[in-house]
Amino acid sequence: MKKISTIAFSGGVGGAKLALGLARALPPDELLIVANTADDFDHLGLHICPDLDTITYTLCGRANRSQGWGVEGETWSCLDALSELGGPDWFRLGDRDIATHLYRTQRLREGARLSEVTAEMCAAFGIAQRLLPMSDDSVSTIVHTAEGELPFQDYFVRRRCEPRVTGFHFAGADSAAMHPELRAGLDSPHLRAVIFCPSNPFVSIAPMLAIPGIEEALRSIHTPIVAVSPIIGGKAVKGPAAKMMSELGLPISSLAVAKHYRDLVTAFIVDETDSDEVACIRELGLACEAMPTLMNNDDDKLRLARSVIAYCHELSR
Amino acid sequence: MKKISTIAFSGGVGGAKLALGLARALPPDELLIVANTADDFDHLGLHICPDLDTITYTLCGRANRSQGWGVEGETWSCLDALSELGGPDWFRLGDRDIATHLYRTQRLREGARLSEVTAEMCAAFGIAQRLLPMSDDSVSTIVHTAEGELPFQDYFVRRRCEPRVTGFHFAGADSAAMHPELRAGLDSPHLRAVIFCPSNPFVSIAPMLAIPGIEEALRSIHTPIVAVSPIIGGKAVKGPAAKMMSELGLPISSLAVAKHYRDLVTAFIVDETDSDEVACIRELGLACEAMPTLMNNDDDKLRLARSVIAYCHELSR
Repeated sequence: MKKISTIAFSGGVGGAKLALGLARALPPDELLIVANTADDFDHLGLHICPDLDTITYTLCGRANRSQGWGVEGETWSCLDALSELGGPDWFRLGDRDIATHLYRTQRLREGARLSEVTAEMCAAFGIAQRLLPMSDDSVSTIVHTAEGELPFQDYFVRRRCEPRVTGFHFAGADSAAMHPELRAGLDSPHLRAVIFCPSNPFVSIAPMLAIPGIEEALRSIHTPIVAVSPIIGGKAVKGPAAKMMSELGLPISSLAVAKHYRDLVTAFIVDETDSDEVACIRELGLACEAMPTLMNNDDDKLRLARSVIAYCHELSR
Repeated sequence: MKKISTIAFSGGVGGAKLALGLARALPPDELLIVANTADDFDHLGLHICPDLDTITYTLCGRANRSQGWGVEGETWSCLDALSELGGPDWFRLGDRDIATHLYRTQRLREGARLSEVTAEMCAAFGIAQRLLPMSDDSVSTIVHTAEGELPFQDYFVRRRCEPRVTGFHFAGADSAAMHPELRAGLDSPHLRAVIFCPSNPFVSIAPMLAIPGIEEALRSIHTPIVAVSPIIGGKAVKGPAAKMMSELGLPISSLAVAKHYRDLVTAFIVDETDSDEVACIRELGLACEAMPTLMNNDDDKLRLARSVIAYCHELSR
């Protein structure tokens, strides 16, 4: 049994950045990273797990930083050829990335669990930290839009987040099982910090909380739960969080995200540019700090990770 | 209905070369190429049809000539990455080639028949000739060896044809259906030539003949059936035909191949270097001619195709 001190819940890009910072700030056996898998989908017979892959590629230093997804130095021969054949090319699959999906799909077909396959891939990539899918069972985010319900990747990639969002549901969540390693981690006497990475509250963090047992376990622990705001200066750093908030009738602010999490988290971290929201957030009954949260480089990631960990430790005193 | 004048039965490399020659020698709507699909296999969740693909790539001018399989100018990023992950890399899949398999597998999963998918791919590659899998049903060559039975690609690629061959069977052949277009072609009043390309008699031509109805149809037609020897000067131009003949206790000669086909074909074509075998082959009751059959370039392919067609026409007079 690992001595898990820190559990981080993460979606893709922004979450992966903080996950990398945490991985550098902590001994490997102390960190458990839990990834949203409700964006996962089957495409061309491949089982694709965008958030797991973004975190994996980020942790091993292979993520494509400019495009925010996929592998650095990727090639596109397969997709070019598929496109020539008239095959579906709307989801951009790089040649190296396809190997990830082929490997995973094959292992799942052989009966391996997603968490096992993820462990195998982390080992192959030299990642010492434990990265865990939120569940080994399939959960699928369905986006309710003005044009009807859309599977997440249809909304996100094919439709480029254009349809107006009215809500979400997480198909399969009710019957999905929380992973035993996550339960063990949350029950661990060594646990000192639970962190919600700066990920989309609606489609990255919410699906994880929708799995029976996870939210209940979080409510029952005495460890501080700290969420890092994905909104900086009224904008999402990456992704559709701001557009979603606007369409859901919410102000695009860290305060609105804090209100969303208020019943569950101990504390909320906003970016230094939003320090004027700290007082309002504290009025919600949450601890709150402002600090630099924008992660442009690896130093930023490590610094934010250290600050978040230190803040959790302060809160637990 | 196309006015099929020529039907060519083909395996991979050598057969594909003659198929290309025939494609250049005949109006597109006169040629029907029937491909062996008993080498097909499922690998990494991809349905791979080596002979169909070699023929397709050859007909559209994209075949990798030096390696004899796959696509010219291929890249290998996916397989490199798969190899790093510890995935199976014994079957060499290039990035562009993977697109072929992804497209085909997806279309089959959607319910398309292999012959439909093949037509779609030929159209995408600008191939005007009809290329037909021997059947839309699955047939699998099983190689009987001194080490037991091996699926064809395990024998051929993974084991590099090392195990000693004792025989073959074609799993699924009994219940596979001859394609209606092949039956229509063989019944066509325009048919003037049936050609067995210089392909492996045991694992390329034999599986096609094992499909109920094909051999019977061939026996019932009055069109000349001409086989081109895959053996030149006591060696196979490419592939394991010679090694197989030796292990099966056969002499490695065109005469031995002619004996193998004697009950079915009208005539046999040997390479000019084997002209000393012509008399013996004629003694079997077969028509026989020697001509240059080695195809090193496109001119060779066209010349051989024209000679074979002309010979068939002579025989039908």
